[in-house]
Amino acid sequence: MTLRVAIVGLGKIARDQHVPSIATVEGVELTAVASRNASLDGVACFSTLDEMLGHADLFEAVALCTPPQGRHELAHAALSAGKHVLLEKPPGATVSEVRPLEALAREKGVSLFATWHSRFAPAVEPARAFLAQSRIRSVRIEWKEDVRKWHPGQEWIWEPGGLGVFDPGINALSILTAILPRPVFLTKSDLSFPENRAAPIAAALAFSDGAGVPVEADFDWRETRGEIWNIMAETDAGSLTVADGGKRMLVDGQVRLDEPDREYAAIYRRFAELAATGGIDVDLSPLQHVADAFLLGRRHVVEAFVES
Amino acid sequence: MTLRVAIVGLGKIARDQHVPSIATVEGVELTAVASRNASLDGVACFSTLDEMLGHADLFEAVALCTPPQGRHELAHAALSAGKHVLLEKPPGATVSEVRPLEALAREKGVSLFATWHSRFAPAVEPARAFLAQSRIRSVRIEWKEDVRKWHPGQEWIWEPGGLGVFDPGINALSILTAILPRPVFLTKSDLSFPENRAAPIAAALAFSDGAGVPVEADFDWRETRGEIWNIMAETDAGSLTVADGGKRMLVDGQVRLDEPDREYAAIYRRFAELAATGGIDVDLSPLQHVADAFLLGRRHVVEAFVES
Repeated sequence: MTLRVAIVGLGKIARDQHVPSIATVEGVELTAVASRNASLDGVACFSTLDEMLGHADLFEAVALCTPPQGRHELAHAALSAGKHVLLEKPPGATVSEVRPLEALAREKGVSLFATWHSRFAPAVEPARAFLAQSRIRSVRIEWKEDVRKWHPGQEWIWEPGGLGVFDPGINALSILTAILPRPVFLTKSDLSFPENRAAPIAAALAFSDGAGVPVEADFDWRETRGEIWNIMAETDAGSLTVADGGKRMLVDGQVRLDEPDREYAAIYRRFAELAATGGIDVDLSPLQHVADAFLLGRRHVVEAFVES
Repeated sequence: MTLRVAIVGLGKIARDQHVPSIATVEGVELTAVASRNASLDGVACFSTLDEMLGHADLFEAVALCTPPQGRHELAHAALSAGKHVLLEKPPGATVSEVRPLEALAREKGVSLFATWHSRFAPAVEPARAFLAQSRIRSVRIEWKEDVRKWHPGQEWIWEPGGLGVFDPGINALSILTAILPRPVFLTKSDLSFPENRAAPIAAALAFSDGAGVPVEADFDWRETRGEIWNIMAETDAGSLTVADGGKRMLVDGQVRLDEPDREYAAIYRRFAELAATGGIDVDLSPLQHVADAFLLGRRHVVEAFVES
């Protein structure tokens, strides 16, 4: 039984990942798209979700690829219409707005899937298994990239709810919370805001796991020498590195795993599984850590950011 | 069976509320105090919680009245020693840090009570009952006071994790989340930070309940003409006002209830009940809304705040 999916929001992430990944997954088919300005060949195109829901027989599921601000309303409408819903990350502009969606999905007997694409990176499960069997001494995250390269023209990321550097940083937190044996909580947060922007361009975070293991994270959007997306754990079984956003795993510098990125294909396989049973998969802990980082954050004002 | 309580942190809230309230509650007794600089006549006094835990036979329960920053560590130590723990509001400096405490309390078979003193105000339960039977059209919160009067010399409230104007504002949110029939979520947040401070002095918030009922909140610490601590709901059954922090309830301007504040006595009666059964009472929704308000907040810089 094929799961027919409609995408809302035909921006960068939808074109780069969702559309080509759906095409590779058996049992999932893209049948409709809602986008204000763009259209896609070969599928039914609409301007808005509301208009698309007027042709509800075209699809069983909706993938929301719009910015987080305003996503609650779209998810509410799609769930109310009895559609399974996939949420791009972050699942909302606030933590509190997601909980009522869970309740609504249960009421309607449909699936809600808050995706964290980095959790589907190939090194995540092996890293979790490694850490489960070792004694962790410390963890250090470096997650640095060039915002001009990765978020060209995306003004919403600089607006409240757009998360700023936490938009990539939350990927690291989604891996961290998946591979550590114990939950962590934030103890220190320093946020660097460009003087002309409402969201941070860099963040330095410290966490504790309640058992004395220090966890530090350094997020920066001003890295122009290439991407650094690494999580390093010092353990009694050696130094573990989840490298390149989770595509590679190293132990004491030796490559243990190096696989291509098929995160979004895995996301759609999982979505099809969930939809078959009306399953709910919503873990808000990465977004909770970001909210806590703003709550506990000390703000530092840095150089204005001008895109070009 | 008397519950013997030890207080940690002998600051303003402990002296104004906890100490005198405990004295009025049957079945609860203050037997020890830990404070860096202060002592109290008639009870055992220690400099630190650790030192006090060396005399653990003096008490079964610990009330943490220190600032939120650093409270997790104290709560962890007290729970680990097998003591019931009461947390002053807010229950932590972050949302995430409280969850592991719940798990620890369960493991130890002791109580954890995250208090929201305003929920024990006399108008709260009647207001909840009124709203449960009426159709709400809109809700408006005004929570304004003079920070110089209510928080003299409390530098921690201006530090990250100290919440600023949300320190009183969270009282309003604790009432709001107790009296509304449906959960709300934040949709807009404007935060005014004094140019020399790390926490806001005013906040303007908008919430939705997912059913189209607008909820607005206006928090301000610059009100010098007297306190305004009101929640007003327009309904088909009339205009409800929870006034004076919950001491009075009015419907269409007619006073329905006007009772003195006995919030903290009620808190300690509830704590004794919980301790008798190892019960857990931890609702983080007020703090979650504050974290969301920082996450989604647009920052505005206002005049420096100098205390005197």
